[in-house]
This record gives sequence, structure tokens and C-alpha cells, in this order.
Amino acid sequence: MNHKEIFHVYPVGYIRRDNERVTLEILEEYRPALKQLSHFSHLTVLWWVTGHDNPQSRSTLDCYPPYAEDKLTGVFATRSEYRQNPIAVTTCKILEIDEQDGIIKVNNLDAYAGTPILDLKAYFPVLDRISNATLPEWLSFFPDCMPEEGVGIME
Amino acid sequence: MNHKEIFHVYPVGYIRRDNERVTLEILEEYRPALKQLSHFSHLTVLWWVTGHDNPQSRSTLDCYPPYAEDKLTGVFATRSEYRQNPIAVTTCKILEIDEQDGIIKVNNLDAYAGTPILDLKAYFPVLDRISNATLPEWLSFFPDCMPEEGVGIME
Repeated sequence: MNHKEIFHVYPVGYIRRDNERVTLEILEEYRPALKQLSHFSHLTVLWWVTGHDNPQSRSTLDCYPPYAEDKLTGVFATRSEYRQNPIAVTTCKILEIDEQDGIIKVNNLDAYAGTPILDLKAYFPVLDRISNATLPEWLSFFPDCMPEEGVGIME
Repeated sequence: MNHKEIFHVYPVGYIRRDNERVTLEILEEYRPALKQLSHFSHLTVLWWVTGHDNPQSRSTLDCYPPYAEDKLTGVFATRSEYRQNPIAVTTCKILEIDEQDGIIKVNNLDAYAGTPILDLKAYFPVLDRISNATLPEWLSFFPDCMPEEGVGIME
């Protein structure tokens, strides 16, 4: 496809995995941006789905999602990693932050080791927490908030 | 700064404003990705903060946020538009969708007309709605979820 505008993004850190433990490692030059983050309970991670930065994934417009296999669904109505800009958005619980070493331990995050992190944003309920969000009838089996132990059944 | 890895993103549409009315206009080739989105009540918009795609904004690491003017805060602990990758994440209520014409009317979104949209993601409470999120003590005046009429007092 011929894109009129192209923007550049780059990693501010990488996701590391050690068995079940997930840590976010922030590059040295960006560690001052972590100041005060430890006072929040949750953060939202924007990460680059590297395995899907290819023409086939980036031209996929719809799919049959695993949780609704008979419903052809546009990718904007899913959290599929096949999308025009392969940026995933995951909210997780902060377990521990070491600002000096740029290490954040989180409860869970469904990304491979080595995944580039594009951004971190503190979770603000006034912006991110929707009291009355509703889903399509065929997805109504989903819980109405994230389970205490971490990301839900979708990812 | 010298970045080892650089990724490319591009607009899938643009934000339009007409007085207080905000619409998302999706480019023709991506409109099939809207399928089924109308069955969700809310969506999250990833948009490119164009006025901040410059070296000064992209090297800003901390700030004094407007709602806590005595607290030097790293940008990862804010929703500031000064950040390494100027991608904003806003959740809004879907008022109306015209899949054919690629038009989504939303309740509110604090971006200028002409702002590029990078992605849309249906809002899934099981992933995005945190029941027990907490804020720093000095931000405890914020409501604990988004007001019914739209984005909160931060943006």
C-alpha cells in the first residue's frame, strides 16, 4: 500500500521473561521517565508485536477470533496481533519497580521475551476505567473486569 | 539519540471535529476492519500526537503535571503528550458507526482536527477494566472511573 504519511517509533525498553516472571527493562536513557510510577498500582504497556511487522499481517482486515469462531470480525473489533500497526496495549499490575536499574516486575503480559516496549502509561481510572462498557451478546461470557491475578482469558 | 531499532507506523484514518462533535474517519482501504465494532459500547483510539513529533518533545523525560504542580513526574507516570513515542491512548464511547463510509461518531476525544489515527481497539472489560486500581495519594481527588459523559478531568 502507498502511505502518504509514515511516522517512526523506537523501543524505550524490552520485555524479559524468566519462567513465569515478566519484567520490563527500560533502557538507561529513559529511566528518569519512571519517576513516581511506583505510586500507581497499574500501568498500560504499548509494545511492538515484532512477529507481525510484515505485509501479510499488516494487510489483514478481519479474522475469526478464537473466542467467537463463527463471527467474521474486523481487526478493529478484536485485539488480534494481525493489524495495520502492530501495537499491542496491555494493562498490568505493577509488582515492583527499580528506577535506578530500569526494572519493572509486572504480574503478567502475554508477549515474547525480547519484545520492544514503545511506551508506558500510568493507569488512570478516570480515563481508562469504563463503568458501563458492554460487549456483543456472543462475548457476554467474559468477566466484566480483569481478574485479580492478571490478564483475562483473551490473551 | 541513536536508535538501534526503528519501526514504521502510518495512519488508518483521521480525527475530524465539527464544533463539539468528534468523528473518526477511517480510510477506505481499512473500513472492512470495522466489522462488528458497532456491537461494542466503547473503543480505544491510538493516535499520533503530531505537534509533538519533534526532538524536544521526544526527549522530554519528566514534567510537573497540571494536576500536581509540585510533583516532578516521569512521563511514563503521566499522560503527557511529551514522550519518546507520541502515541496517545484514549477510550471513548461509540455513538454511531457507518461502516460503509468509515465514520465513527464518539462522545469525546481531546485531539485536534486532522490528527492521524494509528489503531482502533474494541474495549474489553476483561482486559482494560481494572477493578482495584489505585493512584498516588496526591491524585486521590480523581473519580474512580470515567464520568458517564466522557473523558475525565485530565485531558
